[in-house]
Amino acid sequence: MNLPSDLFEVSTPALVLELPRLRANAAFMAARAASLGVKMRPHMKTAKSADVARLATEGFGGITVSTLAEARYFLEHGFADVTYAVGLAPCRIREARELVRAGCRLKVLIDSPEVARLIADDDTPLDVLIEIDCGDARGGVTPDSPELLEVAKALQGKGARLAGVLTHAGQSYACGSVEEIADVAEQEKAAAVHAAERLRTGGYPVDTVSVGSTPTATHARDLTGVTEMRPGVYMFGDLDQLGLGSMPGERIAVTVLASVIGVYPDRLIVDAGGLALSKDTSAQRHNPAAGYGLVQNIRGETLPGASVVTANQEHGIIRFASSENLRGFKIGDRVRIVPNHICMTAAAHPGYHVVDGGVEVTARWGRIHGWEQW
Amino acid sequence: MNLPSDLFEVSTPALVLELPRLRANAAFMAARAASLGVKMRPHMKTAKSADVARLATEGFGGITVSTLAEARYFLEHGFADVTYAVGLAPCRIREARELVRAGCRLKVLIDSPEVARLIADDDTPLDVLIEIDCGDARGGVTPDSPELLEVAKALQGKGARLAGVLTHAGQSYACGSVEEIADVAEQEKAAAVHAAERLRTGGYPVDTVSVGSTPTATHARDLTGVTEMRPGVYMFGDLDQLGLGSMPGERIAVTVLASVIGVYPDRLIVDAGGLALSKDTSAQRHNPAAGYGLVQNIRGETLPGASVVTANQEHGIIRFASSENLRGFKIGDRVRIVPNHICMTAAAHPGYHVVDGGVEVTARWGRIHGWEQW
Repeated sequence: MNLPSDLFEVSTPALVLELPRLRANAAFMAARAASLGVKMRPHMKTAKSADVARLATEGFGGITVSTLAEARYFLEHGFADVTYAVGLAPCRIREARELVRAGCRLKVLIDSPEVARLIADDDTPLDVLIEIDCGDARGGVTPDSPELLEVAKALQGKGARLAGVLTHAGQSYACGSVEEIADVAEQEKAAAVHAAERLRTGGYPVDTVSVGSTPTATHARDLTGVTEMRPGVYMFGDLDQLGLGSMPGERIAVTVLASVIGVYPDRLIVDAGGLALSKDTSAQRHNPAAGYGLVQNIRGETLPGASVVTANQEHGIIRFASSENLRGFKIGDRVRIVPNHICMTAAAHPGYHVVDGGVEVTARWGRIHGWEQW
Repeated sequence: MNLPSDLFEVSTPALVLELPRLRANAAFMAARAASLGVKMRPHMKTAKSADVARLATEGFGGITVSTLAEARYFLEHGFADVTYAVGLAPCRIREARELVRAGCRLKVLIDSPEVARLIADDDTPLDVLIEIDCGDARGGVTPDSPELLEVAKALQGKGARLAGVLTHAGQSYACGSVEEIADVAEQEKAAAVHAAERLRTGGYPVDTVSVGSTPTATHARDLTGVTEMRPGVYMFGDLDQLGLGSMPGERIAVTVLASVIGVYPDRLIVDAGGLALSKDTSAQRHNPAAGYGLVQNIRGETLPGASVVTANQEHGIIRFASSENLRGFKIGDRVRIVPNHICMTAAAHPGYHVVDGGVEVTARWGRIHGWEQW
């Protein structure tokens, strides 16, 4: 396909990426990392794009990924320093070692002596981080637990090298204020640093002390003892991050372009539904009127009181607080929808139509999709 | 990739399709159509797979699609009789005509005189259905409205051929009983038949009178005057269809295979999260304990009281009504998750691992994904 000249030519539904906003978000978080004295290892689970990664890693280098398919894609695009930040399933150990043999400086994540032993019992060394539970109650061992040292001990073997500890304060997403998020960032830091100290005291070397979520990276007061942070969604932002206080609305960088396919007295129908937007409704916690997304015109200007109230597979139904504001719309018009949770929304699309302050499309940037490639 | 020999070898997360259940669902709906005296035009928006379509269309021929990408894919796989059942955006008229020139016997859907005129004003004839609103308040003109005849009139031109009317009783998804669904099926039929009669009285030929949703197709009492029905999700089923009374649980044919990546005293973590399952929670209307899916062992046997209570991007957190039932699980074990809404869930995956009554994988069937191919 040729590059569409502008957003009027793009086949809908499609993602639109505003380059100046992405640059502002990348600069903001780079400055945060610098002022906190830690390295950035941006999480590419949101963008899944080498073009975005090049921009987000200017001045750093390493990245974080959420699948080994991402690790492979980014290695092919020149990113060799990769942390896979999801607990390693035993069935993926072989695939992880293949990536190492292909040149990837991969770190994997575990939290059990069983998987530690499976890894250690091999000839090709694999760098391993121990996952710490800092209060999120997802994966990880708690920093005070005997299991922490048991995992480190089980990693002794020529197939494993203990690289450090990693934690993720997912509980930051449940916070009601920026102060609460800063408190959670303290817990995140304290858990990771305490686990690292216990390991060092036990005689184990710990180079990496990794923390991060976009809310805690944005609001942490101090990261003494931490070596790196791994936020991801900050690159694009979304209504959930807006509600959490991670960024102002003017920095939300990715929207879904849609065509109006029906105009009725009380509603518009657009060709972006549950697949193009996702069924994620996380932003409704902050703003009950968020629906499946807020609505902008094609130039990115907010349409007051408009949201996607229903998302069927290929149909989005837009209602306005006042139906007066529906006047003037006609079939074929285009709108942009600001999603609840861009990590989920972006996953349905092959990539981004990049704009640079207007409606002209200056580039198309691809994404990696899914898990195993068939 | 080689075909994995069995479900223990499949890279997770992945879709598992139980062939005997798919056959049973296809036979059930074929028998429904036969007893109601209408043709089947199964909707491929759920399965998006030529292999599934071949099985679901045995004895019929025509299919329904939700995107022009599907229309193109199915044409390439030998399905030329295709109805595109989403209101046609003006920007897609050219693409629709390209499909017709490539041999597709395509019918498109409109509900406005504006789009009718755009279509009629061309040299390549396009078959057009008029969308009728039978109470769903999504797209369509109401059967009694003056707009119905205005659209038909605006289609007079060498670029268009009026093929008939089409409606979809999406309101069937809000029903609380099978009786209510049967009543909605009456409304669906009445709206389509009445619109067809008004058009015929106005001098317009109407060959196709098309209705359908899985709930109404399952429970309609009578379809006199209707020519075809277009259910889709019945092929696979899901927890939402189970709750609506469209099928028994033993006929749900597609689940998500996942690996256990963490075992804790109160929960399991699996490698199927919000992307692999979708964030759709529709089944919670019927069963608040449905979470993001109910849980089976690798052989498809239900694990009592187990559901996915949290779905992060690549993490699913499974809790059991009694933590006693967690005993015996270890990292690397495999489970199958019965999704809320398979149309959303399947969209994240490249295709299906087909099993035929056991855990041996007998085939891999691909799917078409997304909208525009980059």
